[in-house]
Amino acid sequence: MTERGAPSLIDVAREAGVSTATAGRALGGYGKVSQRTRERVADAASRLGYRTNGLARSMITGSTQTLGVLVSDVSNPFFATALRGITDVTQQAGFEVLLSNTGGDADAERRALAVMSEKRVDGVIVAPALPSDGAHLARAIELSVPVVQLDRLASGVPSADSVTIDNEHAVAEAVGHLLELGHRRIGVITEADGDIARLRSGNRKRGLLPSAVRLRGYFSALTEAGIPVDESLVGVARYDRESAYDATTRLLELTEPPTAMLCTDNVLASGAYRAAQDKGLRMPDDLSLIGFDDEPWTTLVRPGLTIVEQPTYELGAQAGRQLLDRIERGPGRARHVQLKAKLVARDSTAPPG
Amino acid sequence: MTERGAPSLIDVAREAGVSTATAGRALGGYGKVSQRTRERVADAASRLGYRTNGLARSMITGSTQTLGVLVSDVSNPFFATALRGITDVTQQAGFEVLLSNTGGDADAERRALAVMSEKRVDGVIVAPALPSDGAHLARAIELSVPVVQLDRLASGVPSADSVTIDNEHAVAEAVGHLLELGHRRIGVITEADGDIARLRSGNRKRGLLPSAVRLRGYFSALTEAGIPVDESLVGVARYDRESAYDATTRLLELTEPPTAMLCTDNVLASGAYRAAQDKGLRMPDDLSLIGFDDEPWTTLVRPGLTIVEQPTYELGAQAGRQLLDRIERGPGRARHVQLKAKLVARDSTAPPG
Repeated sequence: MTERGAPSLIDVAREAGVSTATAGRALGGYGKVSQRTRERVADAASRLGYRTNGLARSMITGSTQTLGVLVSDVSNPFFATALRGITDVTQQAGFEVLLSNTGGDADAERRALAVMSEKRVDGVIVAPALPSDGAHLARAIELSVPVVQLDRLASGVPSADSVTIDNEHAVAEAVGHLLELGHRRIGVITEADGDIARLRSGNRKRGLLPSAVRLRGYFSALTEAGIPVDESLVGVARYDRESAYDATTRLLELTEPPTAMLCTDNVLASGAYRAAQDKGLRMPDDLSLIGFDDEPWTTLVRPGLTIVEQPTYELGAQAGRQLLDRIERGPGRARHVQLKAKLVARDSTAPPG
Repeated sequence: MTERGAPSLIDVAREAGVSTATAGRALGGYGKVSQRTRERVADAASRLGYRTNGLARSMITGSTQTLGVLVSDVSNPFFATALRGITDVTQQAGFEVLLSNTGGDADAERRALAVMSEKRVDGVIVAPALPSDGAHLARAIELSVPVVQLDRLASGVPSADSVTIDNEHAVAEAVGHLLELGHRRIGVITEADGDIARLRSGNRKRGLLPSAVRLRGYFSALTEAGIPVDESLVGVARYDRESAYDATTRLLELTEPPTAMLCTDNVLASGAYRAAQDKGLRMPDDLSLIGFDDEPWTTLVRPGLTIVEQPTYELGAQAGRQLLDRIERGPGRARHVQLKAKLVARDSTAPPG
């Protein structure tokens, strides 16, 4: 941005008849300046069309009043809604938000965090792309950048605050609903890949994506109910509708197909719903289906979809509040807040036909 | 953010055995420094855990590599998708995005623009909350902050670039589709309020929200087809599903209800769809319905919804490209790009039953 011809602080000081240092203090809102001088300088700045230099002020006050937010994809309704919660809380407190889409790529996240750190953000909220490695988050905290983790807990960052949803409990409740209705062959559509054996035995919460935590909730709910896990009922999909559509179709074409299915995410649920429709299945008679997130479409389809409703806006708002609090109070014992999701029963679930 | 105990540039210079000025040039990437010195300073900075000060660099280079984006609501899928287009293009060029939700409030937009200007953003992309008054945008341009308008054109900002959708043509095409099918009583659900007489006569494009431009497209398409406009078929709603539901219900309860309806937005369309369902109407036999935007739900409902598809991601990407171009080339004749929307016919439209 070229600034040729733009009035400088020296011009403002001359116009107001004060020293440059005084003009700087008056416009920057720091140091001691009389009310009368402050007004005279402000008038001079306004007459000349002088633009306050927030950079200079930030170098003096040590605060940029800017927060960084790093998520995989802001066009995903989940992150868009959480982001709205973050900005509502932090804008009210006078902070602006610097946004980065990482595309779920850990390297992109590291680079964005480095850039934000250079831009001297006062703190960051991050949904770690690769929760198994949080070294860069730990390093940011060492460099005095407070970090609040959103939606998932990274390994190796014991000092970072967090706000998450109790995903394991939420899924257990959803599976419990199907069990109560009398279902025994319950399938799941998940984007948690591969290491199912490890998930079934493990007990960690850190280092896992929500999808993995949810899949573990599915396993443990079945196991607790005394139902042996049938891995042919676990449909692994990429994170898109088409892949979920295919995974669902495969499960529905089994010799012994499931009578009920759980989708651990909103995007996957929309693909599964479509697959069941295209197979000509009547829901809930031929198939009970549970999705995630209270998206508008879940009440527009017939039957309306039973869902696990996450408090997504509140997740973001709480992360914003915690970050502001941490910035104000400085380093200390990490605070972990877990919010509850709730099951909303609609017409897509019923006893097996 | 407290920086007590954090290593300073002086510490790095001492560690590297060079002057402070040389260390500053080496780390800031400006001025003349030998490759060997640059590496020695970088190593020293790394050993000490020194964090480059982007603020200092920005004061010297005059660029913050930061862009401002001002929209009403990032949790609205339209803006979320456009924002993704903006960030994909601008992050690749090394720019970060400072985001502000204005809630559609003109004062909030003015405040946010002032803050961003103070933070020395290199340019802004804005969907003006109150297109009838663009004075603050004109002022930003005077202060050397390039402005690209997104989705709507404000009055009084002749020098700002813009990227918009050809909404008038898009709606005319949708109404034309219904006319071709044989419909004559065609209703519309709109959030454009009040001044319908002015809209019907006016010819401006600046200063109008997309909702008003679309409503004008509805009027002109009917008029061109020789069909007198019946204002009882214009259902005005607030911008939420419930209000659209009520407005639709009122139209459907007329003595002579419409045989077809157009909703000028995705949120309104979801409320209208629901209202038609709850009235027990069969679509398309009892009612043809057209919505806006290719949201996932429009293909999950039965019948699938005929829609006007906006190139939303491309709208944001193009705005990003234009802003980068403007920053590089400096002030000049404003460039206005208009993208085309297209009608996607599905099963919710058919000849009147």
